[in-house]
Amino acid sequence: MTWDRFKQHHLPFPSLGLALDISRVPFPDGFLASMEAPMQRAFAEMQGLEAGVIANPDEGRMVGHYWLRTPSLAPTAAIAAEITQTVAAIKQFAARVHAGELRASRGTFTRLLVIGIGGSALGPQLVHQALGRPGVDRMQVSFLDNTDPDGIDTTLRALRDELAQTLVVVISKSGGTPETRNGQLEAAAAFQAAGLTFAHHAVAITGAGSKLEQTAIREEWLARFPMWDWVGGRTSELSAVGLLPAALQGIDIDAMLAGAAEADTVTRRAVTRDNPAALLALMWYHITDGRGAKDMVVLPYKDRLLLFSRYLQQLVMESLGKEFDRTGRVVNQGIAVYGNKGSTDQHAYVQQLREGVNNFFVTFIEVLRDREGPALEVDPGITSGDYLHGFLLGTRDALSEKDRSSITLTVDEVSPRTLGMLIALYERVVGLYASLININAYHQPGVEAGKKAAGGVLSLQAKLTTALAAQPGRRFTAEALSTAVGSPGQTELAYKVLQHLAANGRIHATQATPWWETTFHG
Amino acid sequence: MTWDRFKQHHLPFPSLGLALDISRVPFPDGFLASMEAPMQRAFAEMQGLEAGVIANPDEGRMVGHYWLRTPSLAPTAAIAAEITQTVAAIKQFAARVHAGELRASRGTFTRLLVIGIGGSALGPQLVHQALGRPGVDRMQVSFLDNTDPDGIDTTLRALRDELAQTLVVVISKSGGTPETRNGQLEAAAAFQAAGLTFAHHAVAITGAGSKLEQTAIREEWLARFPMWDWVGGRTSELSAVGLLPAALQGIDIDAMLAGAAEADTVTRRAVTRDNPAALLALMWYHITDGRGAKDMVVLPYKDRLLLFSRYLQQLVMESLGKEFDRTGRVVNQGIAVYGNKGSTDQHAYVQQLREGVNNFFVTFIEVLRDREGPALEVDPGITSGDYLHGFLLGTRDALSEKDRSSITLTVDEVSPRTLGMLIALYERVVGLYASLININAYHQPGVEAGKKAAGGVLSLQAKLTTALAAQPGRRFTAEALSTAVGSPGQTELAYKVLQHLAANGRIHATQATPWWETTFHG
Repeated sequence: MTWDRFKQHHLPFPSLGLALDISRVPFPDGFLASMEAPMQRAFAEMQGLEAGVIANPDEGRMVGHYWLRTPSLAPTAAIAAEITQTVAAIKQFAARVHAGELRASRGTFTRLLVIGIGGSALGPQLVHQALGRPGVDRMQVSFLDNTDPDGIDTTLRALRDELAQTLVVVISKSGGTPETRNGQLEAAAAFQAAGLTFAHHAVAITGAGSKLEQTAIREEWLARFPMWDWVGGRTSELSAVGLLPAALQGIDIDAMLAGAAEADTVTRRAVTRDNPAALLALMWYHITDGRGAKDMVVLPYKDRLLLFSRYLQQLVMESLGKEFDRTGRVVNQGIAVYGNKGSTDQHAYVQQLREGVNNFFVTFIEVLRDREGPALEVDPGITSGDYLHGFLLGTRDALSEKDRSSITLTVDEVSPRTLGMLIALYERVVGLYASLININAYHQPGVEAGKKAAGGVLSLQAKLTTALAAQPGRRFTAEALSTAVGSPGQTELAYKVLQHLAANGRIHATQATPWWETTFHG
Repeated sequence: MTWDRFKQHHLPFPSLGLALDISRVPFPDGFLASMEAPMQRAFAEMQGLEAGVIANPDEGRMVGHYWLRTPSLAPTAAIAAEITQTVAAIKQFAARVHAGELRASRGTFTRLLVIGIGGSALGPQLVHQALGRPGVDRMQVSFLDNTDPDGIDTTLRALRDELAQTLVVVISKSGGTPETRNGQLEAAAAFQAAGLTFAHHAVAITGAGSKLEQTAIREEWLARFPMWDWVGGRTSELSAVGLLPAALQGIDIDAMLAGAAEADTVTRRAVTRDNPAALLALMWYHITDGRGAKDMVVLPYKDRLLLFSRYLQQLVMESLGKEFDRTGRVVNQGIAVYGNKGSTDQHAYVQQLREGVNNFFVTFIEVLRDREGPALEVDPGITSGDYLHGFLLGTRDALSEKDRSSITLTVDEVSPRTLGMLIALYERVVGLYASLININAYHQPGVEAGKKAAGGVLSLQAKLTTALAAQPGRRFTAEALSTAVGSPGQTELAYKVLQHLAANGRIHATQATPWWETTFHG
């Protein structure tokens, strides 16, 4: 019974070293046929996108991440040449660093500090976690991916004795991302405090003409690599953003690109059943009712893929989480994504998955190869890897028994090639699914609102501190001060900002009861 | 307008250094009053639980994690004495390790390897991440929290040159958790390969009479610490499970316990409005309609709290994700939890939170203190911490504007005391909420099914390998072999197991088309 359905819906793609099993999604027999017309429209749209139409009309941009691994597809020879030259430049730069031709303030570069956030951090973090090998990697990698001062201090403190051997890669397309700019300034201050010239350690990956590029030129940083406006942050892993850190770590970036290119070839097929990306998109559509009605739980049974769910969380939620469809209708789309790794997560929440709210589907990621070298038998004839595999299969069965849907993706191993393949596969799934639900997957209008509001908070803070400084010692409640600075509608924000300033010793607070009578002075 | 609601529903708890803001949850005026009777019942049940009734009837167990930080509350003097003696023994053991009185095979112990999974790993991992200080910690900590052979290899390889200075703490209540047992066996093999006696490096934290205890006694491990049947895994952080690794790392465990005890005092109050745990439970109830209708997105704006959402994911989902209520009615309860940290996650999925499916509420965790020591100005008068704080407030506003609910928890700083307080706070929220929805929060019947199914997979594997070994060279399809071993209903599993064995060179596969004609031989 399940064997028959499995025979029908377990689909190996040998050229990719990938198998897709959709047999545990209870879609009815006619479902694929009923979706064939919209799927063909999605293929046609994807073809247009790959050919260079303005697939992101709101931002007036082409969407070109597929060209990164097959430059010959780029719509102009100039773009193709830029891609090819950039990959060559990355490999050459990494080779010079590894050979000690490009030297740090003192000796060879042995450490790499990557500064970026969102699309400029998660890809490099995923690759670092998935492909790093202690004792084999050419450089040890750390990240600044936030503007948390204590987090920055912790990372820089761990590098303290090795700053002189540290190469810093700053990644920001616009050059204006505050978290990244702050990380850069904090790192530069640490280098200066150590008597080192930051510019002799710094590399920029950024868009042409950005503030970051200007800084890198003015201060004569070691190198610059491009980010193009036709590559979005969340699909930039196979541009310089991901390739430079990977190459510096010693990872085979040609294999990553080749894996992605092979996945592109297969996921470009216009025959739905031969296209794993199309089938995944259709499963998402069926399970979530085309409106995100269920969450996607991503469970790779492999420690190296711990960050893959976080990577997909960004790719899927930022691409699909949209208020309007392409006709301007309010749709509030998206699919929530979470997960860490199996079997670890079984001990955290398989209880709820099996018995609790049925508001999710699981994507299991099965890795066939257990380890390099010989395996210990933990029981007669049984290895640790057999247990890991058994837990995956057991949980998959335990969920099916309770009518919880799951998809299983099987890969041979975790390698540069496989990782490039998985990234490309899911980029295509997201693109096709976006066509099915008729949204623009390539913009992120909702991110601006929070940034703008944060800017408002910082302006308010400036007004508040100026007012307090102008009348030192005079005590104000949040209500009085926000009125005094002409922002009576922002009393709540003013209170929050004043508490934060006081907690950091920058102004004084006299706590009172009720708490809103608390006064602040400079 | 918002200021008035904020005045009413922003509630500081100064003795905890905590404030709870529920003003951004749009519950109507009469809601708290309407829930007062069930809330009082929940308080009464909690009182019974703390007094030692069998609050987990399915397993016939008391639920005693609150006694861990206030032993005087324990129902018997013997239990109280055990708790107190264990904390003293932990501190003494850590002091002897730090002083070099307890020595490794060669020299002082400088590394700590913790082996555990689920409740025996996430707490120690959270504490390690939240409170670790490079250069200050007494020992460097790593974890084996899975049965992934490659993950085990990676962790052990990183420790390779320092195994002689490594103390290993193995944590398993039953002593029978396969992931932990496998991790222990793999680690022991690595010690043996390095010419070291594992027992001279090993400490057990386990239940009385467990297999792990027997091994530790027989092999004369360095020490043993107890796990009690009245402490569940997911609430064991303030037992030896969490306290021993923390003490070894150099963290002030008395402060952790004191923070938890203070939170217990406040969350024991039977006046709803004075009890932050009760208010949080009521907000969960209101927002999720008492049936998990929305996901909980946990966003601490502080790198140190990155794992707090994963910790809560386990605590909440394993406790609340239940098929039956306490009367045996099918309820399929639970609340899905995910999140990493702000502002980083803003770049990953605030797009969807603001614009997409409105199927969640956010819990912001605001930490007032930015960093130790002076702050760099990244703009005139503005620090990196101001940006972090501004992003939190800005995102909070941006979500409210779009009718997305949020709760904000404010703490002064991330310290042992605060962390103990947060852990205790959420343990109480989960307990009270479970009363409101009438479920047993302290068992996990759904976990067994997956384990049992995994056991079935391993039995099947043994049958398959035995059959292949008995007829070397003879080729079987999965279908033929599963029939031959008398498991014709398990052909799908047999195929998966055979593919896994073949990928690891333990049997041979001859791939065919269609794939189910693939044959396997020994």
